[in-house]
Amino acid sequence: MREMKEAIAAPQNSSLGDQIVGRINELAAISESSAHLARIFLTREHRAAADLILGWMRSAGMRAHLDAIGNVCGRYEGEVAGLPCLMLGSHHDTVRDAGKWDGPLGLITAICCVADLHRRGRRLPFAIEVTGFADEEGVRFASTLLGSRAVAGTFVESVLGVKDANGVSMRDALVQFGLDPDHIGAAARARGELLAYVELHIEQGPVLEGLNLPVGVVSAIAGATRLAASLTGMAGHAGTVPMALRRDALAGAAECIVEIEEFCRTGHDGLVGTVGYIHAMPGATNVIPGEVSFTIDIRAPTDAHRKLAVADIVRRIEAIAKRRKLSLQVDVTHENRTAPCAPWLRSQVTEAIAAEGYRVFELPSGAGHDGMAMIDIADVAMLFVRCRGGISHHPDEHVEVADADAGARVLLRLIENFRPRDAAK
Amino acid sequence: MREMKEAIAAPQNSSLGDQIVGRINELAAISESSAHLARIFLTREHRAAADLILGWMRSAGMRAHLDAIGNVCGRYEGEVAGLPCLMLGSHHDTVRDAGKWDGPLGLITAICCVADLHRRGRRLPFAIEVTGFADEEGVRFASTLLGSRAVAGTFVESVLGVKDANGVSMRDALVQFGLDPDHIGAAARARGELLAYVELHIEQGPVLEGLNLPVGVVSAIAGATRLAASLTGMAGHAGTVPMALRRDALAGAAECIVEIEEFCRTGHDGLVGTVGYIHAMPGATNVIPGEVSFTIDIRAPTDAHRKLAVADIVRRIEAIAKRRKLSLQVDVTHENRTAPCAPWLRSQVTEAIAAEGYRVFELPSGAGHDGMAMIDIADVAMLFVRCRGGISHHPDEHVEVADADAGARVLLRLIENFRPRDAAK
Repeated sequence: MREMKEAIAAPQNSSLGDQIVGRINELAAISESSAHLARIFLTREHRAAADLILGWMRSAGMRAHLDAIGNVCGRYEGEVAGLPCLMLGSHHDTVRDAGKWDGPLGLITAICCVADLHRRGRRLPFAIEVTGFADEEGVRFASTLLGSRAVAGTFVESVLGVKDANGVSMRDALVQFGLDPDHIGAAARARGELLAYVELHIEQGPVLEGLNLPVGVVSAIAGATRLAASLTGMAGHAGTVPMALRRDALAGAAECIVEIEEFCRTGHDGLVGTVGYIHAMPGATNVIPGEVSFTIDIRAPTDAHRKLAVADIVRRIEAIAKRRKLSLQVDVTHENRTAPCAPWLRSQVTEAIAAEGYRVFELPSGAGHDGMAMIDIADVAMLFVRCRGGISHHPDEHVEVADADAGARVLLRLIENFRPRDAAK
Repeated sequence: MREMKEAIAAPQNSSLGDQIVGRINELAAISESSAHLARIFLTREHRAAADLILGWMRSAGMRAHLDAIGNVCGRYEGEVAGLPCLMLGSHHDTVRDAGKWDGPLGLITAICCVADLHRRGRRLPFAIEVTGFADEEGVRFASTLLGSRAVAGTFVESVLGVKDANGVSMRDALVQFGLDPDHIGAAARARGELLAYVELHIEQGPVLEGLNLPVGVVSAIAGATRLAASLTGMAGHAGTVPMALRRDALAGAAECIVEIEEFCRTGHDGLVGTVGYIHAMPGATNVIPGEVSFTIDIRAPTDAHRKLAVADIVRRIEAIAKRRKLSLQVDVTHENRTAPCAPWLRSQVTEAIAAEGYRVFELPSGAGHDGMAMIDIADVAMLFVRCRGGISHHPDEHVEVADADAGARVLLRLIENFRPRDAAK
């Protein structure tokens, strides 16, 4: 049955884009619910998706296996066996109520490119590997990039004890999946085995759409700092406390939110700041809020820029709190350094885009990606494909067939023209 | 047992303040839980509190009964039987996790004043009635002032069908309590029976404390308008949508909150505006909020002032929404007209305060009170007593014995010097 579906989805004479979209839909049918898309790490759906992808890899002429963390790994040998590889990849897990493109597009495109080489009997002076990372979104164990960290050798053993919402530890989930939690180290690759890591991914933002471009080259995967802020004033009756005597924690938080937006909007190239969560207590219509907690997410194309911005924003909200006689608590809850894309590799992506006849546009990735982990063992580049309305992590996530095709042609050209760093000069 | 406790709490030679505080504590022991104070309409605690209060009324020389809605009603005749009355009162229900003073202070003080007259054998050229309203807070059926509306003849029959959180209708609750829901009209009083309604209550705000005054005279019970506002923009990834392309509903709401505060704070005497509740969706750290709902509570000493302010605030948030390309929905969810305190009655409160040696200070009541309903059958006045930190609807609600005593002495003087409107000139 699966063989038949594949045969329908990827006839020999269809475009790469058609083949990719057919497989995107086939993979999207594997979900914990028919009502929404969700493929979570170490579940039955993870197993079913991996089996499907392994089949695609093998029919593309690759040796394929599941590694020690559940990543799907395929290898297409070069002109001789055992050469270092250009690694391509993305993830096949999803958030809950996901779109079907975030992750799968990059993975499926890479497999389709290899299949194209295989069909033509083309072998290159390096091997190609394709990795489908098992957990990038971090839905189940609240720790992201588990798949790529295992490959990069930076998987932290202590997370094996973390439990999911049902109280199942990652260790037990691995065992139930048929993996050995004591051998995750076996998934790690050595630096010399990889010539580079290149990932194609949907943009997840509206920039390419606004410029009417199907693809873009990523300058860097922006680092992020997340802060948890809490303001405490004095709760009171909405009718009985005059404005001048109030210490309203929500009015204070509102001023902070306006200030953060203004700071990021004016003259700070590429900086973004978001307050996504807010909670006012006690939260009744007729009570002045005595305490408000909110989050701040700050990202910038360079670490130095981000750190300066974080310090500046904290100083500004401290000043607001002080003036309003509110007590302020700010904690850093999460920090990711920027992963810059390697200039030598970026210029090869740029050449491939130009060679396919598209205007070259460079943009930072505000979202995190597996490249943030892979940078520890290889130089990294990313190619973005336009998605409709910039919508992602939502069922409305959408990529046009023509754009999927454009992305695949650029990636294929990049592969065929790829020169390792030493040769790239 | 109760007799003994009362004897201990209210010995003949103690001050009015001591007697009042003793009874406040006795009444506070009647609660649905020993962990927190809650006395809810038509419960066992309502019955126990009513029995206790009826006993106090009778020992103060009053005839006392429960009326058709469960209000505790006591009458102390004047020089001859059957004269029109000066009605005093407040409520004996509470919010959940309440303080013990909001409501009971006014009711108990009134009874203690009558008891003092009774002890001295003093009869006045009018009757005194004391009413302990059964439901002012509206906790059980989400409809406030049920007790005083029944007395004012404005009880709306349709609320009998409203159900509490356990699915019990007000009609059934009345029957279970031993009352006849078809005879609530019997609680209504005729306008000619009442010379005035005067209520003593804690301020529930910090104004008197800030001025170092034990009591104050209320100018009006401020009307209130409550709005439910909702802003809709576009959700998006916190990392991938540049600041300039965002339609962030929370940043928009924050600007509205700052604007509302600023508008109410500057040059608008007595106007207060509060955003007490806010909810941002989807509410994740790394997602730009696409929709935010929040409430606005606006109060002012006059209806005209409040209505102008509401219109102005709505215009301002409409402008913010328009500029930010957010769609805005604003609905009025609640509206109470202002209940002005009658000048002729207010001046008698003023005289009593001055006669007791306190500086006279007039302030509006931002909180709602039974006087808002009683104004339909009688002129109304209110006397505020200082409470610590302006805290109310909270276990920390507190009144000093000396202030309870000051309030009682002012009220007693007011009663003894009271001239009906026609005589007051």
